[in-house]
Amino acid sequence: MTHARTDLLLRADRGGVATLTLNRPERFNALSDALLAALGEEFGRLAAEEDVRCVVLGASGRAFSAGHDLREMRAHEDEARHRALFERCSAVMRAIRGCPVPVIAAVQGIATAAGCQLVAACDLAVAAESARFAVSGIDVGLFCSTPAVALTRAVPVKAAFDLLMTGRFIDAPEALRLGLVNRVVPEEALDRAAADYAAVIAAKSPAAVRLGKRLVYEQQAMGLAEAYRHAGDAMARNMAEPDAVAGIDAFLARSGSRQGLR
Amino acid sequence: MTHARTDLLLRADRGGVATLTLNRPERFNALSDALLAALGEEFGRLAAEEDVRCVVLGASGRAFSAGHDLREMRAHEDEARHRALFERCSAVMRAIRGCPVPVIAAVQGIATAAGCQLVAACDLAVAAESARFAVSGIDVGLFCSTPAVALTRAVPVKAAFDLLMTGRFIDAPEALRLGLVNRVVPEEALDRAAADYAAVIAAKSPAAVRLGKRLVYEQQAMGLAEAYRHAGDAMARNMAEPDAVAGIDAFLARSGSRQGLR
Amino acid sequence: MTHARTDLLLRADRGGVATLTLNRPERFNALSDALLAALGEEFGRLAAEEDVRCVVLGASGRAFSAGHDLREMRAHEDEARHRALFERCSAVMRAIRGCPVPVIAAVQGIATAAGCQLVAACDLAVAAESARFAVSGIDVGLFCSTPAVALTRAVPVKAAFDLLMTGRFIDAPEALRLGLVNRVVPEEALDRAAADYAAVIAAKSPAAVRLGKRLVYEQQAMGLAEAYRHAGDAMARNMAEPDAVAGIDAFLARSGSRQGLR
Repeated sequence: MTHARTDLLLRADRGGVATLTLNRPERFNALSDALLAALGEEFGRLAAEEDVRCVVLGASGRAFSAGHDLREMRAHEDEARHRALFERCSAVMRAIRGCPVPVIAAVQGIATAAGCQLVAACDLAVAAESARFAVSGIDVGLFCSTPAVALTRAVPVKAAFDLLMTGRFIDAPEALRLGLVNRVVPEEALDRAAADYAAVIAAKSPAAVRLGKRLVYEQQAMGLAEAYRHAGDAMARNMAEPDAVAGIDAFLARSGSRQGLR
Repeated sequence: MTHARTDLLLRADRGGVATLTLNRPERFNALSDALLAALGEEFGRLAAEEDVRCVVLGASGRAFSAGHDLREMRAHEDEARHRALFERCSAVMRAIRGCPVPVIAAVQGIATAAGCQLVAACDLAVAAESARFAVSGIDVGLFCSTPAVALTRAVPVKAAFDLLMTGRFIDAPEALRLGLVNRVVPEEALDRAAADYAAVIAAKSPAAVRLGKRLVYEQQAMGLAEAYRHAGDAMARNMAEPDAVAGIDAFLARSGSRQGLR
Repeated sequence: MTHARTDLLLRADRGGVATLTLNRPERFNALSDALLAALGEEFGRLAAEEDVRCVVLGASGRAFSAGHDLREMRAHEDEARHRALFERCSAVMRAIRGCPVPVIAAVQGIATAAGCQLVAACDLAVAAESARFAVSGIDVGLFCSTPAVALTRAVPVKAAFDLLMTGRFIDAPEALRLGLVNRVVPEEALDRAAADYAAVIAAKSPAAVRLGKRLVYEQQAMGLAEAYRHAGDAMARNMAEPDAVAGIDAFLARSGSRQGLR
């Protein structure tokens, strides 16, 4: 069932859930050019796989990801190379957003700089109690500008500003309180919790899940009237899907004289 | 004092507060075509009633609202009818936003799918401790697309995504933590709490309340510089209102040598 | 070290941190025309001072600020004068946003109406446990329209709407929970906490801090793809800064075989 495209990024599929694992544990899963390329390729593949219903993005070793590979970055001297690197990194983040099914980050250890950005960029996140988060580029004089894009869209702006300017770490409960992660679980339960989370989504109508993910982000960028129009259209199309017809009929049969969703 | 326009939606007025009550308790106040039409008409009337200072939107029976009336929806087979239904529902949500005075949801029991959307679409909400909220369309294969419009504008996006994709219920304290409701009270105190909340607002300057509700949402859609310009204009016009002149003079008389608002 | 440009607004500089102090304690630091003018001038100066790394905005006496000077406002009868006043006030708020370095509000006592707006408009805020916040213009018939601009961008919209319509006070822990302030400290520790907060930021690379503050707000107004492009550009330019090169090299030297940020 498990098949690795590259040693840097593992993939295992089970029950419609594709689990990707960052696999540079000796480098705290720093996002090297090669690892970013592998992520970009894998999300490209996933976009075309109709049997995938949910993605989990985890990491091997003690850390989720320590962000960019600074040693590799310093080996390039020219700004054009750096620009290409940040473009590749942003392309991965946009690929997560563009992935047609939900992507759940499963976070243990530290998630720093672009590693924290990965968490913010995923649709959902579950964290081990011991996980810690920081956008700490400021500590080496490199402001976490691209992480700020994802972070300021996930947590209140004063909280994001504080994290970006101080580089301080927050623990998992604070990440939960701020909205950066959805669930916090004991460290030994992380893999199981992420798998269960994905299984819940994988059990839903694939058509509705795919339509829903796209709709959530599309309508966010619209004014209220346009958003409602767009969403109403989506629901009318959704009602024409066989899954919805069957789901509603099954619900009505179960509920007998009851009515509505509960 | 109480006068019903239709059995489906009751209305009672007292002290400038119009209390609307969804009244299909045997159907968990599912939003049938007829109930949506009644809501649309009532908010149309309210928009023209200058003596109304605040609206409470509650529900009779054990539930606030279980969302769309699925049985009725399945009786229509054509997409055009469904499109018209979702358009009518969105029109009600926009009518709440467009209502010139604040609308407070008073929530007991369950508020699911379009019922949860109603809560999110209201300006303010008070919930019984036992209230529970879900956007559970995903469970029958019908993603809560229009509820997503209201929900993603009320709570952090990862939390909204989680609720929309899992269909899970949250209790009232979690709804409070997320920003979906403003206050949680014991179940037996719900009506009193909603009435007291509305009475506080009804006691303020009607001109300032109406100008304020409009301003809050208008400026939200603007960039910062334009928003400040628009809001500064609103304050200058507000200062010319007799209520503001009288209110400030009364305050200054009370405060004697004190200064400013406290 | 301390040098006052005017008695109304004090300024003290130490270690790259400029501390401004609202100094009308007998009037609860109400924002008179003259005090707003002094604030505007000082932020104008700060914008050109390259050795300043962080600004603290505090207040003398028992209150942070009770908002506009209502007595002075009532002395003007014409709408044009009021319009000019609100424009001046908004210009100060935009100058705080436009200030090239972070501005930290240090709040004791009450922060009401435009005083609460000042807190919301600062990039960061630390509050004494005893601090209390309200946008209470509604209580005198003058809706806090310009404060709403800052407040609805800092806290969840239903919470902002509640505060604006009821005029009620919240305490410092609730302000923290809502995202209006970043830290709450014992009253006697407020000055020290604000100074420490600023010192943390003043110790970072000035180039990265300045680039970062600007980037955070610029990208917020953009769509996701444009925001990532803009932020990627900023990071590539940031990598060319001597501070970043030196910071990363020092980090790599310290971390030896370790990799990434932690």
